[in-house]
Amino acid sequence: MTSPHRPGLLSAPDFATAVKEQLVKYFDSRRSEVSGIGQPVVDNTRFLEDFVLNGGKRIRPLYAWAGFVGAGGMDTDISPAAMLEVASSLEFIQACALIHDDIVDASDTRRGNPTVHRQLEAFHRAQGLSGDPARFGRSAAILVGDLALVWAEDMFQSAQLPATARARALEPWRAMRTEVIGGQLLDINLEASGAESIELSDAVNRFKTAAYTIERPLHLGAAIAGADPALIEAFRGYGRDIGIAFQLRDDELGVFGDPKVTGKPAGDDLREGKRTVLLALALQRAHPADAAILRNLVGVTDDPADIATMAEIIETSGARAEMERRIDALTSSGLAYLHSAGVQPEVADMLENLAIKATARKS
Amino acid sequence: MTSPHRPGLLSAPDFATAVKEQLVKYFDSRRSEVSGIGQPVVDNTRFLEDFVLNGGKRIRPLYAWAGFVGAGGMDTDISPAAMLEVASSLEFIQACALIHDDIVDASDTRRGNPTVHRQLEAFHRAQGLSGDPARFGRSAAILVGDLALVWAEDMFQSAQLPATARARALEPWRAMRTEVIGGQLLDINLEASGAESIELSDAVNRFKTAAYTIERPLHLGAAIAGADPALIEAFRGYGRDIGIAFQLRDDELGVFGDPKVTGKPAGDDLREGKRTVLLALALQRAHPADAAILRNLVGVTDDPADIATMAEIIETSGARAEMERRIDALTSSGLAYLHSAGVQPEVADMLENLAIKATARKS
Repeated sequence: MTSPHRPGLLSAPDFATAVKEQLVKYFDSRRSEVSGIGQPVVDNTRFLEDFVLNGGKRIRPLYAWAGFVGAGGMDTDISPAAMLEVASSLEFIQACALIHDDIVDASDTRRGNPTVHRQLEAFHRAQGLSGDPARFGRSAAILVGDLALVWAEDMFQSAQLPATARARALEPWRAMRTEVIGGQLLDINLEASGAESIELSDAVNRFKTAAYTIERPLHLGAAIAGADPALIEAFRGYGRDIGIAFQLRDDELGVFGDPKVTGKPAGDDLREGKRTVLLALALQRAHPADAAILRNLVGVTDDPADIATMAEIIETSGARAEMERRIDALTSSGLAYLHSAGVQPEVADMLENLAIKATARKS
Repeated sequence: MTSPHRPGLLSAPDFATAVKEQLVKYFDSRRSEVSGIGQPVVDNTRFLEDFVLNGGKRIRPLYAWAGFVGAGGMDTDISPAAMLEVASSLEFIQACALIHDDIVDASDTRRGNPTVHRQLEAFHRAQGLSGDPARFGRSAAILVGDLALVWAEDMFQSAQLPATARARALEPWRAMRTEVIGGQLLDINLEASGAESIELSDAVNRFKTAAYTIERPLHLGAAIAGADPALIEAFRGYGRDIGIAFQLRDDELGVFGDPKVTGKPAGDDLREGKRTVLLALALQRAHPADAAILRNLVGVTDDPADIATMAEIIETSGARAEMERRIDALTSSGLAYLHSAGVQPEVADMLENLAIKATARKS
């Protein structure tokens, strides 16, 4: 990884393998503590281990790594192995976020498998335990998610960073976790309030998605590498704009996406009543009679005819076209940051490719 | 606090005031971040702030502080203010533990007030939000608990400890959080399995109560002060034994306690079907016919006559007397540690008083 011919930039699949190795090692390092508490704890945490080891594209660790390499971290005395450990710890934060989010959303499946609370519910049934299996599943999953969050902190803290690098890491580390939890709180409050504010929906995208997924991981890696403030601002600007554009694309696909491409039923967001920027734009721009229909149907119907009606109102309102304009503008402004402040060219190329993949039209 | 005449040992009420000041300052330091995310996040986290600032006896911070002072921390170059910050951060862990535990147990009240998820449910109603208020309350409380856990980590990490002291703190810090979450997982699994194992119930007491409340906070403070291994083992031994004795007393009160003293209805644990050591001892020692009655009634009735029948079976079985023997033995062995390894005498006296208060007969 430190060969002079490859300045630390792994291909995405190689990187995902390296992250998984770190995570396997980490679970091994905690095994005796867990079994010292009792066999049921071993049984329950096995679901966390499966979830963390088999899941996801390791996108947050990848951005953290890119921030580190892109800020010249491979030319410092900071151990790439320690940086890889910090980057990998983000997968534990993500595990907590997803496990708790799936309880909040009462979701049954995630990545094609039953969600962790559903798996723990099935465990309750299989063991013939007493009480309500669904309630047991949720309770155990709250605690398993807490354990993931605590292990993220432990993994971050035990990485052998120099004290100065650790001190620099604290700002993005602190911000990232409060932003993602705050973004989730904002999200459930907006959904419950039926808010039609573009500004608040934008804030959910900014904090729950952009800051947590791209901006802060890049910031974290760059801060550890000792990047100067201008470079950190460039990474953060890229992360913010591309992260929001990615979420806008995701929202567009949530209404207009081809189920064969998205893996989700058509119009899923409309069925759930998600308070997206797309919906807020449509409610603002549609003819008042159309807006009233949309307002009445969203979140309360799963009749395909109703879903089609809503999609058509959104299209006709011009909201979809406005979304495309916003995605284009954010992608351009996000990419422009890469050419402004001494990002290593190889890393800038990688970030550009990631941005294009994350924001492109899917049909 | 550093006056030579008072080597840092505050009275419990003074100490509680000092902890509260730290917590007030901490909330102030995060306020702009929270309001930057959005007003609903401010509204939701106000419930966390009320809960943390107005609650509890600050018992975990007190033990951490006692460990620090008792190991001679006031004679080192470690800032007492930084140690106080670390000690106070334990209140955020406790906030998460209680908020999530109250969701798990579906508890309606805590410290005489509605639980946080119930308060958030009432907030949903008062704001006229849409959807199920109870579900919103639980969801928001999961996230608010997560935020408390993350802020505990941040407060711990931002305390200005010397790097060597921080490194020494990591072992108890890591162990404590995994132990309490593991202990909670064990607890809900035992309750669901109807286990009658004294050993597993003992493990719940050890990890969920003793390690988390006394052993590890003392260990944390002593480690930060740079205590030698023998002194740390003495503190840990005290914490383990007194912590378990305290839990056994609590379980005894959960069956035989006077509601006027405990603040809980008589026989509360029997109604809930809590898998205590007391219950396990009674099931093991009672006449088989009595054990069968107990097994059939526990956790499924709230008829006062049934509760009285169960209490009588437990008493007659000799389990209550065995509990008293265990509490006495643990209290003695716990206190013996204090006289073995150079604990500062003033601190040893304080720990002795705390131990006697925590384990004494209440009627």
